[in-house]
Amino acid sequence: MDLTEITSPAFLKKLNKEQMLELAEEIRTFLIEKLSVTGGHIGPNLGVVELTITLHKMFDSPNDKFLWDVGHQAYVHKILTGRASDFDTLRQFKGLCGFPKMNESIHDVWETGHSSTSLSGAMGMAAARDIKGEKNYVIPIIGDGALTGGMALEALNHIGHAKTDMIVVLNDNEMSIAPNVGALHAILGKLRTAGKYTSAKEELEYILKKIPAVGGKLASAAERVKDSLKYLLVSGVFFEELGFTYLGPVDGHDLVELERNFQYAKKMDGPVLLHVITKKGKGYRPAEEDKIGTWHGTGPYKTYNGDFVKSSSIAPSWSGLVAETVRDLARDDRRIVAITPAMPVGSKLESFATEFPDRFFDVGIAEQHAATMAAGLATQGMKPFLAIYSTFLQRAYDQVLHDIARQNLNVFIGVDRAGLVGADGETHQGVFDIAFLRHMPNLVIMMPKDENEGQHMVKTAIEYNDGPIVMRYPRGNGIGIPMDEVLRPIPIGTWEVLRAGTDVAILAFGTTIPMALEAAIDLETKGISAQVVNARFIKPLDSAMLDYLFSMEMPIITVEEAVLAGGFGSAVIEYAHDQSYRTARIDRMGIPDHFIEHGSVNELLDEIGMTSEGVVKKVQSILLNKVLEGENA
Amino acid sequence: MDLTEITSPAFLKKLNKEQMLELAEEIRTFLIEKLSVTGGHIGPNLGVVELTITLHKMFDSPNDKFLWDVGHQAYVHKILTGRASDFDTLRQFKGLCGFPKMNESIHDVWETGHSSTSLSGAMGMAAARDIKGEKNYVIPIIGDGALTGGMALEALNHIGHAKTDMIVVLNDNEMSIAPNVGALHAILGKLRTAGKYTSAKEELEYILKKIPAVGGKLASAAERVKDSLKYLLVSGVFFEELGFTYLGPVDGHDLVELERNFQYAKKMDGPVLLHVITKKGKGYRPAEEDKIGTWHGTGPYKTYNGDFVKSSSIAPSWSGLVAETVRDLARDDRRIVAITPAMPVGSKLESFATEFPDRFFDVGIAEQHAATMAAGLATQGMKPFLAIYSTFLQRAYDQVLHDIARQNLNVFIGVDRAGLVGADGETHQGVFDIAFLRHMPNLVIMMPKDENEGQHMVKTAIEYNDGPIVMRYPRGNGIGIPMDEVLRPIPIGTWEVLRAGTDVAILAFGTTIPMALEAAIDLETKGISAQVVNARFIKPLDSAMLDYLFSMEMPIITVEEAVLAGGFGSAVIEYAHDQSYRTARIDRMGIPDHFIEHGSVNELLDEIGMTSEGVVKKVQSILLNKVLEGENA
Repeated sequence: MDLTEITSPAFLKKLNKEQMLELAEEIRTFLIEKLSVTGGHIGPNLGVVELTITLHKMFDSPNDKFLWDVGHQAYVHKILTGRASDFDTLRQFKGLCGFPKMNESIHDVWETGHSSTSLSGAMGMAAARDIKGEKNYVIPIIGDGALTGGMALEALNHIGHAKTDMIVVLNDNEMSIAPNVGALHAILGKLRTAGKYTSAKEELEYILKKIPAVGGKLASAAERVKDSLKYLLVSGVFFEELGFTYLGPVDGHDLVELERNFQYAKKMDGPVLLHVITKKGKGYRPAEEDKIGTWHGTGPYKTYNGDFVKSSSIAPSWSGLVAETVRDLARDDRRIVAITPAMPVGSKLESFATEFPDRFFDVGIAEQHAATMAAGLATQGMKPFLAIYSTFLQRAYDQVLHDIARQNLNVFIGVDRAGLVGADGETHQGVFDIAFLRHMPNLVIMMPKDENEGQHMVKTAIEYNDGPIVMRYPRGNGIGIPMDEVLRPIPIGTWEVLRAGTDVAILAFGTTIPMALEAAIDLETKGISAQVVNARFIKPLDSAMLDYLFSMEMPIITVEEAVLAGGFGSAVIEYAHDQSYRTARIDRMGIPDHFIEHGSVNELLDEIGMTSEGVVKKVQSILLNKVLEGENA
Repeated sequence: MDLTEITSPAFLKKLNKEQMLELAEEIRTFLIEKLSVTGGHIGPNLGVVELTITLHKMFDSPNDKFLWDVGHQAYVHKILTGRASDFDTLRQFKGLCGFPKMNESIHDVWETGHSSTSLSGAMGMAAARDIKGEKNYVIPIIGDGALTGGMALEALNHIGHAKTDMIVVLNDNEMSIAPNVGALHAILGKLRTAGKYTSAKEELEYILKKIPAVGGKLASAAERVKDSLKYLLVSGVFFEELGFTYLGPVDGHDLVELERNFQYAKKMDGPVLLHVITKKGKGYRPAEEDKIGTWHGTGPYKTYNGDFVKSSSIAPSWSGLVAETVRDLARDDRRIVAITPAMPVGSKLESFATEFPDRFFDVGIAEQHAATMAAGLATQGMKPFLAIYSTFLQRAYDQVLHDIARQNLNVFIGVDRAGLVGADGETHQGVFDIAFLRHMPNLVIMMPKDENEGQHMVKTAIEYNDGPIVMRYPRGNGIGIPMDEVLRPIPIGTWEVLRAGTDVAILAFGTTIPMALEAAIDLETKGISAQVVNARFIKPLDSAMLDYLFSMEMPIITVEEAVLAGGFGSAVIEYAHDQSYRTARIDRMGIPDHFIEHGSVNELLDEIGMTSEGVVKKVQSILLNKVLEGENA
């Protein structure tokens, strides 16, 4: 069939098994072809084709609620709810979002992006249903990786206790973004290899019959053995203990088995956990054979052999530069350890892990634990490098504040993917970290202008022993400049003048430096002399340089790829007011007070006016105003 | 013995059982007497007397590391490590802290205040030990309540997988701050009532002998029965599944049993969980008989009968005012539900819970789940009231941002204990919430000047249906003013002039309003006319009023009981710069960039100059400067 003709999942009700198999095949072909052009989360979506078809056949969305945890596996759901024709624009500016979006479809009832939220959202929806006396099914679909996130465990605990009707689908694909760690994963591993519950039960009943019928103490023990049926055969004991009825494991690519199990789950009261085993990348060999998560999310590739369309950049990736500099320094500094919450590949920590397996910790999707474990290591004289994406550091806000900053411990936090991240969109933009870190006492926050300064900043962070230090760096690659042989620490709180000027000072850092320099060159052609300052320390500010700029009465523009409220620009105007620079003229450019959707970083910056032209226009308007004010004075 | 003569826990090694019993008795008497004067966490500390004595006898602190989760149960530890003589200053300004503090003693190796951090900290310490090849015991002591916090579960998962040597003491006192909820608690309940592991094992072995020895399939089943020994008798199955060796349950007031079990735990490899049953308030009848947590932490009381020394305030408590207004509105508005993360008593939600049991959710210590569950409820048209202390909302930063604000859902967040909280000290000060909430798009943030405005704000929040709305309110009681009969919503983003003036405008909100008004009265006697504005909306600002003030060229002082960086004052200067009010003079008063320790709120405010005298001085210096600048112009 033509997938683009689907307008609603209702057609699924009438399909027989043959037609469903055919549909699954068509969806796979569609995904493999479309994503080869746009890129996207191919592996997770190929894994849930049969599961999603079955869900939409067996339930009535949107009356029944599907909550796609993390949400990057909702492509099949998008196809079945009438969005196949939008896949040419997947993850592109103004195009189809790579995650569930309420404004795209009534079938997207819960938006996700960060992991482990679906169970809590489902508990809220189910509670609302019960209060209102309505009838519907609430079905969170959560991966085994997301299940290690603390908030998912908090929710399991509450749901199991409250005995709320809900069908939790555990989509166990053996590999989340990277090989899973944690005891929970070991349990799931046992479940995967164990037989089915029913046959095991038969076996045990046979044994029980052989136990001699005696009274007293022994009988009570026999009773316990009976009670303990559910604990046997390492089946769903963990979930049963938490109060769920455990069903499975089920082959997530077997349409008949899936249907049978959902049929069963629908009839049960209380919370049910249906354990579904799926294979990431199912049906596309390059993705199926992936061992390290390369095919979790990809750029464009050649469908016939799975070769990736290479990026043209020859500059090192930021993650790689930072991780490898840390690794190099770790050879001589035995205090250094590295911690990642489930992102060893994304954070490029593989070579550190290989060289220092005992000093490397992948703690799973567990940002809170990662941050506080770093604090624990630091209390014992270690120097932990906590590599974490800006957007996921949001999960560890309290741990950074209460455990790291308050105890003033020597933790080096590498804030990766800082700034706009592009195609992943509003749940992943790394634009809040300055605003949520800057008010924490004891913290140093810095961002390098290029990869050479980046390596010196890593050295700075490692040598800094007066408390926590944060280095932000963007997604993607450096700019391809020569690298110094010898690393030297940068004095804390010092900025540098990149270009001298007399009419206006542009304070920028990290990704906004090229924008500022371009603007300055353009301004020069217009007869305006702009000073460009690399404000590489966001905290503490370079007060000497600010004092100088204010005393020269130069108008100042701050440019940051981060939210304006409480950001770097605010720090500069706070300083001006605190120091009573009455005549200071400061204008701020940055991310406005709304969420930024998906698109290329350049498109997104362009839309909010953050371009070199935008800076030029801002400078011109300021200087024009200054002239006018001077005339009026 | 005289407890104040203890300088180190070394003396414990030589005590016999009689002497230890005597010591326990003396410590109880000491605590009951001292705390009757100072107040403090009496219940939790009376519960861990024998446990703490045994820990210090069996281990060598600080080489062996005790991590007191939450930390309010460390008084006995403080006594045994030489701090008994400081108890007259407990929780007082410059006195003994109510939580572990590294700068008090080398025996305090990990500072706590927020719950559930000890396991992660312990994992860091144990990892550091193993990397360095050192030998010591790492012993987190965690309550059953704290165990429901997501980060504790993240840590259990990692520790169990890594098989790291560690002795986790589960201090199961049947009641954390309020009756526990959650499946985990149900499991602990089963453990409590179950027999000991050893005798059960004997019983089962007897049964196994009776199973006929046959080959093939049956033998394998019998094997499984043997393997499943550990799952039987609902003993430590949950923890064993996670990879821990489970020991217990042990009577936490039986010195002999405690010693035997720790002896055993010390010999084991890998992570051990020792399940200790204690009774909160043990040995002091009023505290032992407490059912709802009244004796968890108290003010002064009469030792002979447990009567509390009454607070003189007759004004309603802020928590009570807000919770009861929500309850009253819930009678006519069936959308309203209330959620608390384990603080039903602190948040005064008992009467809501009694009247609307189906619309009330105590989710346990699980702030992340609480916030996202509120989001789930709101997607279905409910109006959740999420009552949460400012300091604990830090745990749900990402959930408020990613799930509530980003999806723009109608959640009413009641931020209780906003501002300085006093005796609980730096881990509990509610001074960060404005800085960490203000940059979230879609959020409205407000704080009332008194309890009458407070009730109108509750009405405002309930009637507001354009997204999330936050109402902050302080710890303690209102100021005792007449209450309006009829509630009316306050227009969003409107401030009010409380006192007209022409020389200077003081913008204050909530707890700083009385300070501002007093200052204005004092300034009047000095011939200075100060306008006092109730800036009750922190976001959005009242731009019309700001435009007016700026156009009048009035100097502005902002006064907030919250951190300065990125706070309300910053919002005002951001606005001034964004709107190009070139001549605006704005000075900010608030919490400086360091952590604020314990003491009375007034002492703490006094120390940082936030008093009416401080405001007067600030105004005088501003006006003097203005005159000087005028002369220089």
